[in-house]
Amino acid sequence: MIIVMKTGVTTEQIEEVVSFVKSLGAQTHVDRGEVQTVIGIIGEKAEILRKPWGSFTGVEKVLEVSDPFKLASRKFHPTDTVVEIEGVKIGGGNRCVIAGPCSIDTEENAMLIAKSVKAAGAQMFRGGAFKPRTSPYTFQGSGETGLKILENVKKETGLPIVTEVMSIDQIDLISRYADVIQVGARNMQNFNLLKELGRRKIPVLLKNGIASTAKEHLMSAEYVMSEGLKDVIICLRGVRSYETAMRNSLDVALIPYLQHLSHLPVVVDSSHSTGLRSYVSPVAYAGMAAGADGLILEVHPNPKEALSDGEQALLPRDFEYLMQRLENLTAWDQKEWNKIEKSKK
Amino acid sequence: MIIVMKTGVTTEQIEEVVSFVKSLGAQTHVDRGEVQTVIGIIGEKAEILRKPWGSFTGVEKVLEVSDPFKLASRKFHPTDTVVEIEGVKIGGGNRCVIAGPCSIDTEENAMLIAKSVKAAGAQMFRGGAFKPRTSPYTFQGSGETGLKILENVKKETGLPIVTEVMSIDQIDLISRYADVIQVGARNMQNFNLLKELGRRKIPVLLKNGIASTAKEHLMSAEYVMSEGLKDVIICLRGVRSYETAMRNSLDVALIPYLQHLSHLPVVVDSSHSTGLRSYVSPVAYAGMAAGADGLILEVHPNPKEALSDGEQALLPRDFEYLMQRLENLTAWDQKEWNKIEKSKK
Amino acid sequence: MIIVMKTGVTTEQIEEVVSFVKSLGAQTHVDRGEVQTVIGIIGEKAEILRKPWGSFTGVEKVLEVSDPFKLASRKFHPTDTVVEIEGVKIGGGNRCVIAGPCSIDTEENAMLIAKSVKAAGAQMFRGGAFKPRTSPYTFQGSGETGLKILENVKKETGLPIVTEVMSIDQIDLISRYADVIQVGARNMQNFNLLKELGRRKIPVLLKNGIASTAKEHLMSAEYVMSEGLKDVIICLRGVRSYETAMRNSLDVALIPYLQHLSHLPVVVDSSHSTGLRSYVSPVAYAGMAAGADGLILEVHPNPKEALSDGEQALLPRDFEYLMQRLENLTAWDQKEWNKIEKSKK
Amino acid sequence: MIIVMKTGVTTEQIEEVVSFVKSLGAQTHVDRGEVQTVIGIIGEKAEILRKPWGSFTGVEKVLEVSDPFKLASRKFHPTDTVVEIEGVKIGGGNRCVIAGPCSIDTEENAMLIAKSVKAAGAQMFRGGAFKPRTSPYTFQGSGETGLKILENVKKETGLPIVTEVMSIDQIDLISRYADVIQVGARNMQNFNLLKELGRRKIPVLLKNGIASTAKEHLMSAEYVMSEGLKDVIICLRGVRSYETAMRNSLDVALIPYLQHLSHLPVVVDSSHSTGLRSYVSPVAYAGMAAGADGLILEVHPNPKEALSDGEQALLPRDFEYLMQRLENLTAWDQKEWNKIEKSKK
Repeated sequence: MIIVMKTGVTTEQIEEVVSFVKSLGAQTHVDRGEVQTVIGIIGEKAEILRKPWGSFTGVEKVLEVSDPFKLASRKFHPTDTVVEIEGVKIGGGNRCVIAGPCSIDTEENAMLIAKSVKAAGAQMFRGGAFKPRTSPYTFQGSGETGLKILENVKKETGLPIVTEVMSIDQIDLISRYADVIQVGARNMQNFNLLKELGRRKIPVLLKNGIASTAKEHLMSAEYVMSEGLKDVIICLRGVRSYETAMRNSLDVALIPYLQHLSHLPVVVDSSHSTGLRSYVSPVAYAGMAAGADGLILEVHPNPKEALSDGEQALLPRDFEYLMQRLENLTAWDQKEWNKIEKSKK
Repeated sequence: MIIVMKTGVTTEQIEEVVSFVKSLGAQTHVDRGEVQTVIGIIGEKAEILRKPWGSFTGVEKVLEVSDPFKLASRKFHPTDTVVEIEGVKIGGGNRCVIAGPCSIDTEENAMLIAKSVKAAGAQMFRGGAFKPRTSPYTFQGSGETGLKILENVKKETGLPIVTEVMSIDQIDLISRYADVIQVGARNMQNFNLLKELGRRKIPVLLKNGIASTAKEHLMSAEYVMSEGLKDVIICLRGVRSYETAMRNSLDVALIPYLQHLSHLPVVVDSSHSTGLRSYVSPVAYAGMAAGADGLILEVHPNPKEALSDGEQALLPRDFEYLMQRLENLTAWDQKEWNKIEKSKK
Repeated sequence: MIIVMKTGVTTEQIEEVVSFVKSLGAQTHVDRGEVQTVIGIIGEKAEILRKPWGSFTGVEKVLEVSDPFKLASRKFHPTDTVVEIEGVKIGGGNRCVIAGPCSIDTEENAMLIAKSVKAAGAQMFRGGAFKPRTSPYTFQGSGETGLKILENVKKETGLPIVTEVMSIDQIDLISRYADVIQVGARNMQNFNLLKELGRRKIPVLLKNGIASTAKEHLMSAEYVMSEGLKDVIICLRGVRSYETAMRNSLDVALIPYLQHLSHLPVVVDSSHSTGLRSYVSPVAYAGMAAGADGLILEVHPNPKEALSDGEQALLPRDFEYLMQRLENLTAWDQKEWNKIEKSKK
Repeated sequence: MIIVMKTGVTTEQIEEVVSFVKSLGAQTHVDRGEVQTVIGIIGEKAEILRKPWGSFTGVEKVLEVSDPFKLASRKFHPTDTVVEIEGVKIGGGNRCVIAGPCSIDTEENAMLIAKSVKAAGAQMFRGGAFKPRTSPYTFQGSGETGLKILENVKKETGLPIVTEVMSIDQIDLISRYADVIQVGARNMQNFNLLKELGRRKIPVLLKNGIASTAKEHLMSAEYVMSEGLKDVIICLRGVRSYETAMRNSLDVALIPYLQHLSHLPVVVDSSHSTGLRSYVSPVAYAGMAAGADGLILEVHPNPKEALSDGEQALLPRDFEYLMQRLENLTAWDQKEWNKIEKSKK
């Protein structure tokens, strides 16, 4: 961590910072430049980082050197995490496609979709029983009825279940049905929820926030992991932008970037990033090309009747076509590139 | 609500939409333009709005005509809401300044700040006992100990208490101490929390989300109000932007805009919008100039020792100076302008 | 175009709008809803759209129905534009990779890069002689010396030349050397420059603005095309975001989206979108997977010595590896999907 | 400037950076931390800053310590710049209001507006003869005819003229009529234009870019100043955001921030930031409350007939009312606050 002092800083102002750092148990190194003086802090600790350095009269700004996440960081855990859910693996070269409706409506529809996506190659089934909605006047989810439908789907098809939790009081109930618990964009920084999930044993699929950065996304994974759970799947669903063409904006560069910073698997949700059926497949395809560890997609046989987000649902035949195309796709392999890099040096 | 059909739409595609609208109990009006056909829907209902219109093959896009909030809307409640908290009024011409530390640390500090801000003219005391923090490794709040300090502050100074809730399970505890319950940016779309607060009787101060729009902010107020509670205070704390000069970006134009759309009081939190002590006061001052109903500000006598956000805390002397300046400020009065407008027509 | 009137609008206010529309030579259709009245305008013209409707006291808002671009629109030109440059084709199924250094430094380097990218499969050579830089104190380009180096490169390798223009007064000079003239992000809305280029005969590669929308990008293409030139290549280089991981944020969904709205070819510049060598290739690969018509990439044999943007330059061996991988990539074909869609209806 | 090395960096990799810095004529200081090694560079120069440090295999990232602008910086020019235009002063405590129509249409209208804004207290007249418009099919400005109308307005009223330039070839013509030359948002990074204006003697009013940062805005001022001209007025017109309530988003915190970083005067354009007449005045008022050195506003007697941007034009009576209110406004004085700060230490 580096503290940049203001132009014209006095010796007293420098001393004030130096002695404060010492009182926190760390060392400093002072560099007096011609224009500006810089104080390096050796032995960076979280507590030091969070001190209100801007309150010192001589301080202009503080530059962080290292990232604030540890358990989620590849620096401290160089090998890929492989999350295993009832025999289905994701991460470390294992690719996995999760598919199903946005909301669970009827058992008939759920079963039909599950069978169709399984036949096409999906390895897990997704479906929301509790739904976060911007308006209190729209459909809020089918609740426990929906969870029981998911249970039947699993019995019938064998597909593990991914479903969303919205608040701490739902965790016990959902845990009885879910194989992976999904945390949605609006809850990415619901820290109490994250910590409580970290104390359980069910893998968490963590979507990025509406306007989060990749590092904040990993900090939220860190919240879960700091309580003990290691199985976190990072899910990219795009962020808000001034571009109105798509519902959200998803930068595929974040796939290799997150895989570089972290050992956790990264999946792409192009249903929510685009919000429009026509663009779900090309973005899913591009995400896998960029090296994603998997996809989570919405499929509905009759989107006009879907209780939520019907506009972004793929038809079963779209999903089937996408899965066929994916079979012949060679993904970009960043690790292979890294190896070539090293060997050629 | 208006449905714009694609170029070259067929009569069957138009008929498909029209008959679906009719099945939902609403009327249509079809306008066949030279280039594009447009279907107007008369008798707009929330359910119709949320149907997946994009799934119809002939539909290009849907344009919303009216806003999705009702209880928070000035259209349905033309007079200003005045929230009254133990004799302190906010809204409808009553301005109110809330001040206190970001986090409650010691009782000594809390008492010192409370007395100093009261002497300077503050009418309510703010202080966090539960803190949402991006990193799990930083101070997470003093919990119930902090709440008891708040209780003592109220006994000693008479200032009503504003404090933040982070999750549903904290509501009962916090309700015993808080006169106003604050919902932070990260929880603006924690819909279960909003609904539970709406079932209680304690006024809610609702901050905007990290990247929310003004209308989404009102939709979240609608969540609270749809459960019965009428006393919601809208709080602007800025939104995320690519500008790194300030922590967030706060557009003061949203003050008169929100007051135009809604009857709820609007307060400004320039501590969180700027994140830097030097800019807290000018923005607070400008917010009041633009017609805000109040301020919520962080004050700490020794920011270097503050447990969180020390960099944005005003010193008691800064706060005193600001309050003195505010006494002589004539705020912009949008309603007066509206009157002049009407009289001159 | 649709005009939404305010709640409680008077008959006079409606009449005022209706008669104004008539005076402009268009027809109206008035729909009086229970809550709001809506006026549809039949025979939409650009002049009508741009009138200050918000100035009418009864008007709440205006909703546009059709897009403001015509010549760039697929609606009016359904087949793909194929731009042909000295035998190299781009668009309509013809994929094309453009590569070269950011800035032209020495002839030796330029020649070395050109030969290496040609050997790897590049079909055009890019290199900047005039450079827009945020700081006046950094390298501003090699000017005409650079252009002469480009001429020699073309003579030696046969690769057509793509180079950037920064202002109208450079057009004549650059036209003597360039086969494609590039317009950079900062000039996307330099309308005088666009119009002047539209009067010439040299194809234009038009990058999106720093924070432009896809439709504004097409409007800028429209500026060029409205003066006569038909050969415009749309280039995506990402937009500004609060995410600091990458230099810019590039949503690959815009590739099929732009190809849907427009008949012009779309290429991806992942050197500028990521700004970091490690992520240039995976994004380029994903862009092609999503169906882009081509790439424009920066390559330099010794990035440490590059006069600008060295951090984002691929090494020749990176480029070679990428080109090999691209050979085996099956791109997503949105048109094929469209066909399947239609046949299954 | 500080170079942060990757975890596990080798001595060779450190040495590579150190010797490269030395070859550029600067000194280094190497700090080997437990986790990361940091290299400080003493004697920061622009050339060093712009080297492609990311290309060195051992480098993780580079942290800038000082700002890249010099002539625009208050560090090197501590006293306020006062721009003086035919006796009208702006900056250093001199406040100035510039008003007039967006575009010049008829001489009659221009004269009527000029007389009315002068009577209300405006000190300069603004009006566009050349207009940048997103669509090629909308009104592009009245050109030289408009400039001649401006000349007559000045003769009649004595008000100095502010008008916009769009390209280098217009400078000579516009210079004959303009007292201040305005550079619009789309040209903020048209560096050739900025440099050419810097070689002339007419003060420049420089608007921020559509999505620029405050520091980039000052870098563009630096472009003008690096060629010799000292009289630059910084103008804030808001930036693009996902919030659709206003045309742009203007953070008033940037007023004191820019005044802190730079000695140049800062004015607010709330006509373009809000885009809606109802919100122009409260934002203008708040901007002056926050300490702006002036305003630039659009006024039109009959906005429905304005050739561009009629929706954001104030009526003469709005402007008059605003000017009356401004007379009684005590602006926030950041320098006074600074003095109190220093005296109390």
